[in-house]
Amino acid sequence: MTPGPVLFHPRVYQAMARVGFHHRTPEYRKTFKECVSMMKEIMQTENDVFIFTGSGTLPMDAAIANCVSSSDKVLNLTGGKFGERWAEITETFGAKSIRLEVEWGKAIKPEMVSEAIEREPDIKFVTLCHNETSTAVLNPAQEIAKITNKHDKILIVDGITSVGGDYVYPDKWGFDILVTGSQKCLGCPPGLGMIMVGSRAWEVINKREKNPSYYVNLPSNKKSFEKKSDTPYTPAIPLIYALHESLTMILKEGYENRVKRHRLMAKALRSGMEALGLQLLAEKGYESNTLTAIRYPNEVDDIAFRKAMQKHGILVAGGQARLKGKIFRVAHMNIIAEREILLVLAVAGLVLRELEFKCESEAGVAAAQEIFSKNLK
Amino acid sequence: MTPGPVLFHPRVYQAMARVGFHHRTPEYRKTFKECVSMMKEIMQTENDVFIFTGSGTLPMDAAIANCVSSSDKVLNLTGGKFGERWAEITETFGAKSIRLEVEWGKAIKPEMVSEAIEREPDIKFVTLCHNETSTAVLNPAQEIAKITNKHDKILIVDGITSVGGDYVYPDKWGFDILVTGSQKCLGCPPGLGMIMVGSRAWEVINKREKNPSYYVNLPSNKKSFEKKSDTPYTPAIPLIYALHESLTMILKEGYENRVKRHRLMAKALRSGMEALGLQLLAEKGYESNTLTAIRYPNEVDDIAFRKAMQKHGILVAGGQARLKGKIFRVAHMNIIAEREILLVLAVAGLVLRELEFKCESEAGVAAAQEIFSKNLK
Repeated sequence: MTPGPVLFHPRVYQAMARVGFHHRTPEYRKTFKECVSMMKEIMQTENDVFIFTGSGTLPMDAAIANCVSSSDKVLNLTGGKFGERWAEITETFGAKSIRLEVEWGKAIKPEMVSEAIEREPDIKFVTLCHNETSTAVLNPAQEIAKITNKHDKILIVDGITSVGGDYVYPDKWGFDILVTGSQKCLGCPPGLGMIMVGSRAWEVINKREKNPSYYVNLPSNKKSFEKKSDTPYTPAIPLIYALHESLTMILKEGYENRVKRHRLMAKALRSGMEALGLQLLAEKGYESNTLTAIRYPNEVDDIAFRKAMQKHGILVAGGQARLKGKIFRVAHMNIIAEREILLVLAVAGLVLRELEFKCESEAGVAAAQEIFSKNLK
Repeated sequence: MTPGPVLFHPRVYQAMARVGFHHRTPEYRKTFKECVSMMKEIMQTENDVFIFTGSGTLPMDAAIANCVSSSDKVLNLTGGKFGERWAEITETFGAKSIRLEVEWGKAIKPEMVSEAIEREPDIKFVTLCHNETSTAVLNPAQEIAKITNKHDKILIVDGITSVGGDYVYPDKWGFDILVTGSQKCLGCPPGLGMIMVGSRAWEVINKREKNPSYYVNLPSNKKSFEKKSDTPYTPAIPLIYALHESLTMILKEGYENRVKRHRLMAKALRSGMEALGLQLLAEKGYESNTLTAIRYPNEVDDIAFRKAMQKHGILVAGGQARLKGKIFRVAHMNIIAEREILLVLAVAGLVLRELEFKCESEAGVAAAQEIFSKNLK
């Protein structure tokens, strides 16, 4: 139940372990091309999409390395570890990072972005972590995009834990770059990172005199794909087969169905945790639909709680960086359904009771059952 | 029979498809730590070794990005596509590339390196492709390292198709950086790239004021590994399990046994191809032991030959770049043994006969049998 790597469908394992074709064959290229087409459908975009062999961080690296020059100013919207990562990458590549930071657990509001841009109108890029995995906050990306578009800024979005699990409409909302990774809502093992590049981002990239990126160079990836439905360097072939299988299953479920299922699971889990007497970290109205962060009450110790959960075969994630020891995180991505949510709440109730936290230990399950039943009507 | 991805052992497929542990658990970290230890043993080094999720090109990218500043002069030794790649990466990161180029098919000689360094003594780095996959030439890395060491230059070596299949002694010979990839002689699917970093390279890296790399940043990888036997970003977990299995098998075979087997297979294949009346591309005395490049006689068409081979289930590689249509390449890496060499030669004889090339079509097999039999005595 951690926010990536997530539980995979057995068919994904099988596809990964099949004997693969060599990557410079028509058979492999057909599979790869279909992966890119399916990714576009799932990302709801008609822009270019590239699939890199690497972690989710690699396309973030690619976005900054390809687009941002050292003389550029970048507004990095941060409210957690992954929003901060954009600022770190911006600084690594020598550009000027301006951090707009909200308290961890709070969402970034469009008016804050507006003010920041008005304060420093020569900002050229804005980075945003759509679904902040470290705090389980869903930032209002559509509203923020309205602001960046109004001011004609290039918007670079991390959709690593939203794409494939929640609504993300880069073309409709106006994102210029959108990155994601294979091991979250896309239901695939880790090792593939995807990047969508829109026309305004291409303009910036194509205008650069020197592009200081090689492995993740976007123009060379575009050339390879357009020429041969291929990548410039050897891809992780087994992971491409795994991705193909998982994307096929995602499209079969359907975009709306999939997002609605994720939202229902999120609602039931949140409601169940609250019924157990626990508090959520995320600001009201901005809760993530793909994972939930829950504050520990004073009486409950992080390590003791997670160890006890694991004894029952349930791995939940702890807090990261400044939230270490203060929260635990439960992801509900990919194939997670009613049975997993009910089980997590049932075991959490038992564990809280074992740890002598005063609560109605069956109340979590009851609250989730209530939500699931209503949904059937 | 292509130079990567190669044929994998079924046990490697099984290991890849096992249900993996989350990467931030002691169970996964133990596996990863063992992979690094085994890689060090196979790379014959006591230096740091890091495993990245990415193609073999990624650690090449990492080597230049971490070490080379834009004011540096780099001597790029080239005699094929992969030697040239170092020059491309050097230029991408803004440094001054000085190319020492030999004809494709020829080896780079130590005295050429000596002269080049004496001509431009402010060269700081030298790059070398040890086993040039595009020409099947094994460059004399040990002798070249003597020169670079004598002149106190940092030597960066691509061992992508030599490590795990031929002798490579970075510590004894004096390499500062050595990179390799999972899908060649290491017998693993593509998607992992390794880099060895020696003390002189660390000195250069640690002295830099700014290190313009994020995903492949070597200091942050070192910190993660030393602190937690971990990587900073999510690794391709299934590929790590596959690597663990393959490295275990490699160490069981033993370094000497493995290299000797690769060298025997190479000798038999070369001898068989020559007995069929074909000529090798590589300069005499510098033939690769992990793959062989064979010139087409005028009468034989590239596409017709490779298609006919493939009809019998044997995929050989064509030439790359300026060698396209002029050669074919047969790899003998990882688990390739007598049976595959005999089969390739038997089928090649049949195909050459079908294409009406005048030769003794059984002579290839006979020559290889002769070599294998002698070896038994």
